[in-house]
This record gives sequence, structure tokens and C-alpha cells, in this order.
Amino acid sequence: MASATNAVAIDRETVERIVRQVALEYLGRDKRGSAPVLTVQASSRHMHVCRADMDVLFGPGTDLTFDRPLFQEGNFASKETVTIVGPRSRLISNLRILGPMRKQSQVELAFTDAIMLGYSDLPVRLSGDIKGTPGAVIIGPKGVVELKEGVIRAAIHAHMNPAEAAYFGVKQGDMMKLRVGGPSGVTFNNVHVRIDPKSRLNVHMDTDEANACGLHLTKDVEIFK
Amino acid sequence: MASATNAVAIDRETVERIVRQVALEYLGRDKRGSAPVLTVQASSRHMHVCRADMDVLFGPGTDLTFDRPLFQEGNFASKETVTIVGPRSRLISNLRILGPMRKQSQVELAFTDAIMLGYSDLPVRLSGDIKGTPGAVIIGPKGVVELKEGVIRAAIHAHMNPAEAAYFGVKQGDMMKLRVGGPSGVTFNNVHVRIDPKSRLNVHMDTDEANACGLHLTKDVEIFK
Repeated sequence: MASATNAVAIDRETVERIVRQVALEYLGRDKRGSAPVLTVQASSRHMHVCRADMDVLFGPGTDLTFDRPLFQEGNFASKETVTIVGPRSRLISNLRILGPMRKQSQVELAFTDAIMLGYSDLPVRLSGDIKGTPGAVIIGPKGVVELKEGVIRAAIHAHMNPAEAAYFGVKQGDMMKLRVGGPSGVTFNNVHVRIDPKSRLNVHMDTDEANACGLHLTKDVEIFK
Repeated sequence: MASATNAVAIDRETVERIVRQVALEYLGRDKRGSAPVLTVQASSRHMHVCRADMDVLFGPGTDLTFDRPLFQEGNFASKETVTIVGPRSRLISNLRILGPMRKQSQVELAFTDAIMLGYSDLPVRLSGDIKGTPGAVIIGPKGVVELKEGVIRAAIHAHMNPAEAAYFGVKQGDMMKLRVGGPSGVTFNNVHVRIDPKSRLNVHMDTDEANACGLHLTKDVEIFK
């Protein structure tokens, strides 16, 4: 019965997940710490800016102005915004800059934004991995920067610290799945794991993903290997 | 071992699907017809219009002008467009009307559109099921209609004919799952089954759903119970 063996093998992931859950209930989850609380957040389109581009866009030596904190410690939405002009000469204004400054400027768009601007096949990348991605013209109050590359659709990802990664049994670069319930229930099958000691467990998705699954309609979220 | 029994029960759907696939390979899929070809299409925001509203918007006795056929026989995109004004007094122009005319007017928006217009919690409904949904002001070249209800986010759904439904072992109103592969791989867990003798198998999703899963990036799609 090769077919039956095959069926069991294919389904191993799901079985492992269920067994893990049930086992944790019976064997005392408390001994390894309680389950981390999962938050899922939608990131609107935004930009990260480097020192050199900040100088041009907002003036030499200027700094980003703190507006509100983001979930991950040290990250914040700034008061500064720019305008992005894409390949179809259409633009989006009020593109928010997130701080702190980075080594490379980068723009993260949802596909809905990208298609409107004329990026027909924007690469799906993890933040920072911008080699070979398209560029854009960025207009600030004090000047204009032509980015040679750096426009991406951010891949859906889960931030977590090493203890949380150990809880789920995952390592840096692994993929997990995120199930979102509700009337527009969706499972995201390629959630990238990003581990950092300063992180707290949360999933970042973009507005297309949040709107596809109706994230605002449900609190039923679950992440698993 | 109540836990083990429970685990098997939870997973029954997946097991059934795998067994069905394997069984079909071994027992001769040809005898019940080959697998229907699945197409998945993204519907942009659009409107369906009733006779009375057509009279007001475009003039008494006017008809929709055929522009291009849609996948399902008899349905078409018309040349006519309107402007919709939502509760925040923002508007979207060039909202395409799809024909033929229907008994009730209805507007189908993606959540991205809805949130921009000010519908903070637009109901997710099957087409035609508009009782208790919000309304809108619709502006046409010859007049203005105030819809009392009819603005929805269309629930993702699969059209199919009775033979295709029999192939999948589903009936009217059942839910199926649609897996889309590629870098932004997603499984839509609540795909409504709509059976009609004139239909051909295809899944309709909206632009948020298509952009979330990067539908334009992959041909790897699979529908299952």
C-alpha cells in the first residue's frame, strides 16, 4: 500500500502540529513557559531612509521626528513624509518614513500601490534584501532623490525572540504558517521567521494581506510550523 | 488515549483529500472524466445595476453597451461607468458596470476601496445577499441614485456546473479551499461553492485577495474540499 504510506507522509506536518498541541496540554505547558501571545499587524506602505538621502530630502543633518512608537522596541513612525513617483509617472504622497534611519533607503509597497504606480511585478523581499529591485523618484520638502533600487513588496514575516523561536521549534529563515479566521479566513503559507533577542512575537503583513483576510474582523489568529 | 483519537478526528478533512487524490490516480481518473481546468480571476470593484437605477443614471430606456465578455457565459463588462460617493464624502470614479442588468443594484468593493471611502466594516456577502448592507450615492451622466443598501465585499467563491461539483464531491453552499502557490503563497479557507448548469469552473476573488497572494506571479492554483 504505497499510496497509504504516501498519504501519511504528506500529512506529517499537520499531525505533528496537532500532537504538539495536545501533548503540551497534557504534559504541562507551564514547564516550558506559557504560549507567547501573538499579535498580527498590518503595515501600510512606508519608507526607510538612509543618512545621505535624509540630508537631501529634509536638509543636511536633520533628524527624523518621533511621532508614535511601533510594536518592536526602538522602531517608530516619524512625522516626516515624502512623495514617491513611480514608472508610470503617477505618484503617492504622504508616504510615511519609519525610524530609525537605516544603511540603505527602502520603500515598502502593497501590490495595490505598486500596480497603481506602474510596478507590474514588484519583487517580494525581506526587508534589507533590495539588490536588483526597482527604484523610484522620492520627493521631500528640501530635495529630490532618485533611488536606483529599493522598492519592494515586503514578504510577510514573524518577528520573535530566541525563547519564542524555541517554543515553536523554528530557527532563523524557517517558514511558518499563519491562519486568520473569520468570514474571509486565510492561511498565509510562507511566513518568514526573523529572530532577534530584542523582538517580541508579532507578524507583519501589508495592507493587501490584511484586507484580503479581513484582519479587522477577527481576533482568531494562529501561527504554526 | 482521547487525545490521539481527537487528533485524528480534527485532521479528517485533510486525510480525505489526500486519499481522494491518491485513489483517483490508482483507480483511473479517466473513468469519471479528467480534472476540470481551474481558472482564478480577480474582479476589480464594480457595480451591477437594476432597470430603475439605469433609467436615472443613464436615461430612461437606455441599455448597457457591451465592451468585453467575462468568463461566465452571458456576463460582460459594459462601457458604462459611474462615480460612487461613500460615507466620508470621498469618491471613486470610473466604477465599471457589469452586465446584464439585475433585479437589484449592487456595488462590490475590495476592503482597500471600502476603507478609503469610509466603510469601516463592510459586510462580506455573496452576490445578491444585500439585506442590511450599507448604501452609497451613485452619480451617472444623467442623474444621481441614492442606494439604500447594496454595497458589499464579495465573498470569494467558485462557480461550477453540476458535473464539476460532482467531481469535487460538493454541493451548493459548501465551502472549499483554494491554495495559491508562489512567493506569497496563501490558502483561502472559505471559498463558497456556487453551482449553475451554465457555469464553468472558476474562482472569483477581489483585488485585495489577488494582490495578497500575488496571483499575477504564479500559475500554481489548486481547489479542494
